[in-house]
Amino acid sequence: MAKVLCVLYDDPTGGYPTVYARDDLPRIDRYPDGQSAPTPLGADFTPGHLLGSVSGELGLRAFLESRGHTLVVTSDKDGEGSVFDRELPDADIVISQPFWPAYLTAERLAAAKNLKLAVTAGIGSDHVDLDAAIEHGVAVAEVTYSNSISVAEHVVMSILALVRNYLPSHRIANEGGWNIADCVERSYDVEGMHVGTVAAGRIGLAVLRRLAPFDVKLHYTDRHRLPADVEAELGLVFHESTAQMVPHCDVVTINAPLHPETQGLFNSDLLATMKRGAYLINTARARIVDQDAVRQALESGQLAGYAGDVWYPQPAPADHPWRTMPHHGMTPHISGSSLSAQARYAAGTREILEAWFDGKPIREEYLIVSAGALAGTGAHSYAVNDTPAKS
Amino acid sequence: MAKVLCVLYDDPTGGYPTVYARDDLPRIDRYPDGQSAPTPLGADFTPGHLLGSVSGELGLRAFLESRGHTLVVTSDKDGEGSVFDRELPDADIVISQPFWPAYLTAERLAAAKNLKLAVTAGIGSDHVDLDAAIEHGVAVAEVTYSNSISVAEHVVMSILALVRNYLPSHRIANEGGWNIADCVERSYDVEGMHVGTVAAGRIGLAVLRRLAPFDVKLHYTDRHRLPADVEAELGLVFHESTAQMVPHCDVVTINAPLHPETQGLFNSDLLATMKRGAYLINTARARIVDQDAVRQALESGQLAGYAGDVWYPQPAPADHPWRTMPHHGMTPHISGSSLSAQARYAAGTREILEAWFDGKPIREEYLIVSAGALAGTGAHSYAVNDTPAKS
Repeated sequence: MAKVLCVLYDDPTGGYPTVYARDDLPRIDRYPDGQSAPTPLGADFTPGHLLGSVSGELGLRAFLESRGHTLVVTSDKDGEGSVFDRELPDADIVISQPFWPAYLTAERLAAAKNLKLAVTAGIGSDHVDLDAAIEHGVAVAEVTYSNSISVAEHVVMSILALVRNYLPSHRIANEGGWNIADCVERSYDVEGMHVGTVAAGRIGLAVLRRLAPFDVKLHYTDRHRLPADVEAELGLVFHESTAQMVPHCDVVTINAPLHPETQGLFNSDLLATMKRGAYLINTARARIVDQDAVRQALESGQLAGYAGDVWYPQPAPADHPWRTMPHHGMTPHISGSSLSAQARYAAGTREILEAWFDGKPIREEYLIVSAGALAGTGAHSYAVNDTPAKS
Repeated sequence: MAKVLCVLYDDPTGGYPTVYARDDLPRIDRYPDGQSAPTPLGADFTPGHLLGSVSGELGLRAFLESRGHTLVVTSDKDGEGSVFDRELPDADIVISQPFWPAYLTAERLAAAKNLKLAVTAGIGSDHVDLDAAIEHGVAVAEVTYSNSISVAEHVVMSILALVRNYLPSHRIANEGGWNIADCVERSYDVEGMHVGTVAAGRIGLAVLRRLAPFDVKLHYTDRHRLPADVEAELGLVFHESTAQMVPHCDVVTINAPLHPETQGLFNSDLLATMKRGAYLINTARARIVDQDAVRQALESGQLAGYAGDVWYPQPAPADHPWRTMPHHGMTPHISGSSLSAQARYAAGTREILEAWFDGKPIREEYLIVSAGALAGTGAHSYAVNDTPAKS
């Protein structure tokens, strides 16, 4: 019988909604690449309800306990003597979300003698030291594609909000003002702008597809070139590198994983090569950009806006400088945790656990580390060694 | 020599920017229907600078004075003894924007003995009593298409922001918080939702085109059916009436002009037929919805969100109930007055005035009332009589 240790974010202030804003979710059977959405044998949760916070338990308790397993759920994951550290030594399986990651460092993996499986309920396993996981024979799986479209929607929303100066204009409406010039002196149309994505994987390509009818010029850079028919359909301009792409762009969106090639990529040197007044959106990982350089670029006007939902560290301290820098459209790390996404990654987590307990193969698309090596489609994103264990 | 009376919104608080956020605007030569963007013979303004506020003067002063005309500019348009009322009796031409409309009521049109032309720098001439304009031989022209795409972008942005709960999440980031559950307990993906537009003219169709790659189900109602190939391309479901459409929709966007058929259309009876938790976006005219019914629907949860930029009256008083109603994403009336849009409608206003002074025909697409009758493409939108003079 296994002990499952699940690290989730805190419950809502004031408790769970007694009535949710909506009664149901649209049914999504397949992702754009044809892969089916998660297909667990059962589900003991209500799609559209909060599942990613402590009391939501990813809808796993009835399932696990009915099979005789133990479920421990906590949000207490950092600092001396955290519940996570106390419960880890005899845990067989660890589950967490990138929005509230349980950092599985080399030290923790060495201490977790029973650990056999680390599941990311969502996408992005850079909170796990993959080299150490390989060394200790720990499998790593994530729910590939479960929230890629959620993030892509957040990116398009953020681009529109920054370029059109939505957030300050809304604030003026809330505060009783009406001066239209104050609202529009920084408001532009996206139409006709050059928009580029750093990486055109599932999220980046979804962003490009959603932007195409805005009559923008689309650019991308990626280690892998997209098929020629996709480039032609969307009118994409390919660039060999981020450095070659960004001087052409009015808007840049980062949709790459964090690895040594991307860590610190957007430093002050690169930002200086962008057009004055460009916008930068980062929903990937915070450390792909230099935190101080971004703030300075906003203060100098080199960047006209910055948005995204990833911070370093997470949770961001209350005095994190990005909270108060000018012209930002940040949120906490939420873009991939809409209620729609939660229903999919909770189902995907259940699908992974069902396969694991039944000794059946986990869906290949979900595997990051398996049988002591980078595996499946995960190998694509994480192929560069030394993936940092914290983001 | 003519007296041109131009009613514009107030200058920015603290004065004009010494440096704008961006150095230039994308060049837009043609609109989606093939019509060319404005082609004035000259332009004495900098595209990308504030033109719609008092000191911007729509870039008209040098042009008008070089031809010996008089330009009077004011933002003072309402109340006893306003500058507008004082200057109107001997004005030959009145210009205003829908964001700060100079209401040309029947009384004012009767008093304006010299008036021959009313120009809307933008789109939407419901601030002019068109029947009275016809009676008094006043031509009415607007800069068709100049900001239609601007508004369409605002609509798509607002849909994403409401559905994904962006504004409260951003506020939490600004205020030092991190509780993810608080952010996402009302956050959904747009993917898979049913989205319908009331009217599929220039703006409505642009919204539909932009939403299509979000993998939503698209609906529309309009007096005129779209071409079959457009319906097929976008997968549109046509409905005979708004009442027939809205029960199917998770999101409804209003893109119809204000006329007797649309005034008060979204009353409590219609709102009650919508899905619980639907979102309503109105960038058309405020009086198409019942102000109190919208607020009550948000308070009861019948609507999950309401956004847009149109209010009644305008400017909205500081205690307007929409400023403080729950789950709204309102801004002042700005969606069609981005700096990008201002450059186009300032150029279009100049184009109209050049034609007028030179005795050449005004572009047919721009004409709403001409030679004592509804004219040109304007006749389509305003064909129903009794267009109200105030919105």
